[in-house]
Order: sequence, then C-alpha cells, then structure tokens
Amino acid sequence: MKKILVLGAGRSSTVLIAYLIENAPSFDWQVTVGDISEAAAKERIGPSPNAKAIYFNIEDAESSRAAIANTDVVISMIPPQMHPLVAKICLAENKHLLTASYVSDEMKSFHTEAKAKGLLFLNECGLDPGIDHMSAMQVINKIKLDGGKVTSFESFTGGLITPETDIENPWRYKFTWNPRNVVLAGQGTAKYLQGGKFKYIPYQQLFTRTTPVTVPGLEPYEGYPNRDSLKYVVAYGLQECKTIVRGTLRNAGYCNAWNILVQLGCCDDTYLMEGVGTMSHNDFIASFLNDQKSEEVLCLRFGLSANGEDMKRLSWSGLFTNEKIGLEKGTPAQILEHILNKKWKLKLGDKDLIVMWHRFKYVLGDVEKEIQAWMTTTGDDEIKTAMAKTVGLPLAIACKLLLQEKIKSSGVVIPLQSEIYDPLLNELKALGISLTEKHR
Amino acid sequence: MKKILVLGAGRSSTVLIAYLIENAPSFDWQVTVGDISEAAAKERIGPSPNAKAIYFNIEDAESSRAAIANTDVVISMIPPQMHPLVAKICLAENKHLLTASYVSDEMKSFHTEAKAKGLLFLNECGLDPGIDHMSAMQVINKIKLDGGKVTSFESFTGGLITPETDIENPWRYKFTWNPRNVVLAGQGTAKYLQGGKFKYIPYQQLFTRTTPVTVPGLEPYEGYPNRDSLKYVVAYGLQECKTIVRGTLRNAGYCNAWNILVQLGCCDDTYLMEGVGTMSHNDFIASFLNDQKSEEVLCLRFGLSANGEDMKRLSWSGLFTNEKIGLEKGTPAQILEHILNKKWKLKLGDKDLIVMWHRFKYVLGDVEKEIQAWMTTTGDDEIKTAMAKTVGLPLAIACKLLLQEKIKSSGVVIPLQSEIYDPLLNELKALGISLTEKHR
Repeated sequence: MKKILVLGAGRSSTVLIAYLIENAPSFDWQVTVGDISEAAAKERIGPSPNAKAIYFNIEDAESSRAAIANTDVVISMIPPQMHPLVAKICLAENKHLLTASYVSDEMKSFHTEAKAKGLLFLNECGLDPGIDHMSAMQVINKIKLDGGKVTSFESFTGGLITPETDIENPWRYKFTWNPRNVVLAGQGTAKYLQGGKFKYIPYQQLFTRTTPVTVPGLEPYEGYPNRDSLKYVVAYGLQECKTIVRGTLRNAGYCNAWNILVQLGCCDDTYLMEGVGTMSHNDFIASFLNDQKSEEVLCLRFGLSANGEDMKRLSWSGLFTNEKIGLEKGTPAQILEHILNKKWKLKLGDKDLIVMWHRFKYVLGDVEKEIQAWMTTTGDDEIKTAMAKTVGLPLAIACKLLLQEKIKSSGVVIPLQSEIYDPLLNELKALGISLTEKHR
Repeated sequence: MKKILVLGAGRSSTVLIAYLIENAPSFDWQVTVGDISEAAAKERIGPSPNAKAIYFNIEDAESSRAAIANTDVVISMIPPQMHPLVAKICLAENKHLLTASYVSDEMKSFHTEAKAKGLLFLNECGLDPGIDHMSAMQVINKIKLDGGKVTSFESFTGGLITPETDIENPWRYKFTWNPRNVVLAGQGTAKYLQGGKFKYIPYQQLFTRTTPVTVPGLEPYEGYPNRDSLKYVVAYGLQECKTIVRGTLRNAGYCNAWNILVQLGCCDDTYLMEGVGTMSHNDFIASFLNDQKSEEVLCLRFGLSANGEDMKRLSWSGLFTNEKIGLEKGTPAQILEHILNKKWKLKLGDKDLIVMWHRFKYVLGDVEKEIQAWMTTTGDDEIKTAMAKTVGLPLAIACKLLLQEKIKSSGVVIPLQSEIYDPLLNELKALGISLTEKHR
C-alpha cells in the first residue's frame, strides 16, 4: 500500500482529492487530507474507506513531522510561502513532494540534497505554471525535432467565467483561486524578451500595456506579461528565441478598469489604513481622491465617461455605495479584496472557464511558420471548478506516475521532461483536457 | 575644552564644519571631522589649528568607538540608515548626538536609555526636517497663545536653483543633496489629512497630484506631499486641525516631466537590469517601451507633444541620445541617477536656492484668519550651497547651545521646544536666514 498526504483542503484541492480517492482502490493507495480545519478536510474526503482527514498546521513542527513521516508522497496545496517548511521535513523524512507553485529561491536550494536522496520535489505542476509548461515543451521539442528554430514564444492563461455565468457581471471575472493573489497580481516589474531586447514593465504601467489575444472561436481577450518570463529561456531551451512572453489572460476591458484601482492605490498591501471600522465603500475610494464625491472626481481625474465601460465595472462592484466595509482594520489590498468578494464570490451554479493560448513562431529552412495552440476547460459547478481540475489533475497524475515509478527525475524539478509531460498530457487528454493546434 | 566630532565631510557638511571651526577659538572647541575618505575630511577643515581630520568608517566598530569615546558631542551627517549604529556607541560612551535626519523606529527605541543618561539625541534639526519644524512651531504656539485655533497647516520646502543659474536647464533643478534620494523621492505612499479626512496618494499618482504654491514675489512652484504628514499631528499639538500636509516644492512643470520617468519604471531600485555595459541612454529608455524609437513612442504613449515642455526636459537630460551609459551594472534608479548626474551636477558658479513656505489657517473668536510664512536662502557658490547652510547651521547652533548647557531636554527629541527653537531661529536670523510673514 502507498500513502499519499494532501496538505490543504481548499477550493483548489477538490478535484485533486476526488481523483486520488477514486483511484485509491485500484492502485492500493491510502489518502490522507490535512488541513488547518479538520472539518474542512473531513467534508472534502466524504465517506471513502481509503481516505482519512487530519488536522494539519505546518507551524506546529511536531505534528507536521509525524504526519509527513507517515506517508510516501506529499502534495502541498497550502500557501506557497510555506512550501519550504514542508520541503525541509520531506528532506529529513525522505519523502517526495509535489506542488503547483513557482520554484522559490529557497525551494531551489534544496535541489542537491533532494537529488542525492533520490527524492522528487516536483513544482510548477498545476495549470499555469504546469499544463502551460508541458504543452509548450511538447510543441517546442517537436519543432526542434523537425529541424525548426523557434523565434518567438508567447503564452497566456486565464481563469475566467463562462459566457452564461453571472451575465450581468461586466468584468466577466470572479474569484476562482486565492482572491488575495488576484488583488496583488502584477506587483513588481514584468520582465520579458521582445525582438531580442530585454523589456521591463512596472506595475504602474502593466494594466495599460496589454496585448489583444484572439483565441479562435472565443470572446476577445487581452493579456499582460507575468513577472518573470526570462527565467524560462534556458529551461525551455530557447536561447536563440527573440521574443519570450508568458502572461495572464483577461476578458477585454478588464485591465483598463482594474488599472484605475491600481492607480488609486487600492491594491497597496504595505500599510494599515486609518479608521476602517467606520468607513463605507465610498469612503474607501474617496480616501484616494481629494473629494468625497468619488464618482465625479474619478471621471474627471482619469478622463472617464460617467456611463462608460470602466465606470460600469467599478459601480457594479459597489465601490461607490455607502455600505459599510465590515472590517475593523486592513491594508488597502485587504479592504479591496473584502469589498470585491461581496460580488466576485462564485455562487451556486456558476461555471468558471480556463483559457490557455500559446503562439510559436519558427523558421523551418527559409520558411517562417507559426503554430497556435489553445485549450479551454469549463467547471462543472462552483465546487468542481475548471481551476480545481486543471490545477489538481496534473498533480494527481504526476503522483500516480511517481508511485508507479515511471518518473526517474529527482531533485527540485519542473515538468519539462518528456518522461513527465508525455504520459501526463496523454491522461489529461483522456480526461477531456487538451490543446487544439492550428498550423500556418 | 569641548570636543565635537562631525561624521561625514560630504557636500552637506561644508557650512556646518566652517561654522564650527570659525567659532572654535572663542568657545574653546576642538573639532574633529571623520570621513571614509580621510583626504576629503582634510580638505574640508583646511589649515585650522582647532580642527583635525580622521578616517572614520562606522562599519569598523573598534575605531568608531575610539573616535566617539574621545569627544563630547557627535554630529552625524552620514547616511541616515547608519545613524542607529552611531547612536548605540553614543549610548555606550555617554555622548550627545545631533542629526538632520528623520527619527527612525530604531532611533526612537533609544529614547528611554538616552533620557535616563541625560543625553540629548536631537534629530530632524536641519532644513526640512528642521527649520520647517522650528519656524512652524513658533507660529503655531504664538497663535495658540493669542487664543486662536489652527484649522489648517500646509508646509512645503524645496532645494532648487536660482533663476540666473544654469539658465538653459528647463527642469530648474540640479542635485544639491544626495542624488540617490532625489531619484527615489516619493516611493511608498504619501499620507496626510485634508478637511478632517485621511488621504493617501500612492507613488504612481504622486507627481500628478501636485498643488500650485505661490510664494509672494517668486516664480510659480508646485508641491507634492511627503510620505507621512500624520506623525506630526500630536508632536505639533494640532489634534484639532483638519488639514495637515508637509511636502516638497519644485518649479512648476518639474513634476509632470518627472512623472514620465516614474511611470516608465526608471526609478525602480529593486532589480538589476540586463546588459547595462553596452546600453546607450536611449536603450535605457527604450527598455521600458515597446520600440527603440523612444521619443516617438513616448509621445504617443503619454499623449505628449514632441515640442512640448515635458519632452524638452527629457531631451535636455540627454535621455534619447546614443551616448553609452558608462556603468557595467545597475538598477534602473542607479542608471537614471548616473545619466542625470551628467547634466544635474552643480558646476562652477552655480547657485542653489532654498524655498520654504508655510500656510496656517486659524480661527480667532469667530474670525477666520491666515498666516503665510516663507523663506528663501541662496548659495554663495557650488560649495557653500544654500542646502549646506540651511542643513548645517541649525546643527551647528544646536551644538553650541548644547555645549553652553542652554538645552535641558534629553532623550530622542526633535526641535519642537522653545528652549531650542527660539535661540536657534534668532541666531539663524542674525545669519540672514529667516521667514517673512504675511497676515490676513
């Protein structure tokens, strides 16, 4: 019998846990789900005889060690900044670790020891990063095998909502993953390569420097670059490529309206505001303007039409009402998240939509060629979301491959090897998750 | 004989050191100037028999302790983040400490121990903070004494250049203090009080939310709020005041042009750029735009006229030329400072200009009244700058008052007590530095 420990029973873990439990009998797995709320973990596993729920708090070193010591592989879905704590225990106890998060510098520092011990610390194995890495590598390696040279790689992914969901919502967006990360998205400087030149976009420009993205058959989207596209140049083997951008996809119009919140300072997470307890939504916005008449002043300041698309989005979110915020304290980012959550929380029957789009330009002989590859995945409902499927299934499948000893890699890795991405993408395809390609 | 140790022989210390040396014979002082460059310290003191120069490096704990042990009072002009190191030695060796810098949280933590030992740790005793505190407190206390109630306090100070200096310079600005601080100015969020409401301006809006400031008889200026005006509400005794803003003054038009550099991301100090060694000024700007034709793209992006005031300022600074930057590596902020310094360095005969302006609104009985108070100080040349006078003389005079035992305060203080500001402002007036008032 093999034991699997899933840490975190939150909204992104539903499909992961369901897959593991469903496959547990055939593969002789025992699945343990640990969460800071044991009740949440219990609810997630249901009545399965192959699964149990435990209280897990990574800040409690003793019980964390005991839980990890008693498993074969750990899948960590807890907040990324806590992964190094999990990794340290996995090293001490000789356990494999799988995550869907970006490799931090601290995680990277465990590589040599993990490799020496023959442990797999597989990261960036969810949706984005994850399926995007794997599907892109498959195409890139095919182009290279055919003798082509990739000159440009662009890749955008977004967690959106289906057209029939929440139809009056002008943002065409709801929270389908950690809302805090949505509010803080893009802080720092985006770095990428364009036509052989290094390019930098600071936060204050990010949401105004979007690229229109047309995915065949779908609504118009726009993309903005993620923080660091440069770190994949070598990892992807794209040293000769002139343009490399990885980014985030939103429905057209989202970024322009979001930019107003960024410009005002509503996404700042560095200081606590004064007098939050008595503030209304409008007071919150007005504290970033020189007058209490937020709507008028905002239109004037940013040259917006009172009936235009941007103001429609901001108004729909209730930002100008006299409703009390309902928090006693908070940073601007915490307060904005709280206000937006009143409208942006998935409700019964809401379906989310994942859209991923890659464009590869390459030269074959003397001919300039292009491949577009795209994927959409729709949620079943507000629990089995497309986000939970596309984040959870790659991890679940990687876990299965690992326990079947089909993955030989070890150390801190991301899924760029064909021994991982070929079988993983194959099974995803069988589960209805795959990319469509268009060649030119 | 009393011993005074001045730490730092940089551009802001010239007048401070000259005052101390000039007054040394009459007051029986021995002046020691310590700098990381002993040669610079030697040059600063000249041939005076009452002064000596030493090598001083705060990171060398042993020699720092020896130097401080051998004095009565320390005046620290080294970078503010190093003041706590100096303060710790002063505490251990029972020495007074004077600085022109803002009180940091760490400096504040020394209050109880300094007070218990009867030591004066006087901070914020330069120009701004310094003369602005003292001159404002004198007016505020006078209004209160007359039975008035202050309802609004605005205060702006700027280190500029005289109208006849560098006449072709469209910024009307040169580096008269630490250039790095000029490039990083305003990062974070400005907090102030307006009409009884807390207001917040993030960096990305700061240089577009300026206030026109009219100082009688002078050129048109504009001001932007400093980082934290709220911390002086209690210190100034202005708990009932509805509007409190302290800010920075620039010639009209400066902020609009500077904002373009802020928006581009040129002032970012958080990452090292790629390939700096081969980059031209234009390459630097183009790395923040989607095309090498910086001027055209910039005009398009920010809606600027190619011949307008903003582009004139940016062009004059050489930002679009093919001149090599001349650095091997650097953050955007370091590179921008390096480029600007080619034009913004004070040259022979340049005269700088300090402008300070306060406006107090108050109610006396039922009558609304107003006092404006302002001051200008001009540099003698590029060495004895107005900046060096107005930063150095308050410290020098405070040192004299302290050694004459005319200051009874102890602990970590800022000059808001009349025992400090009355005699200090009196002597400044005798030296030609004083504010003019206009009542209404």
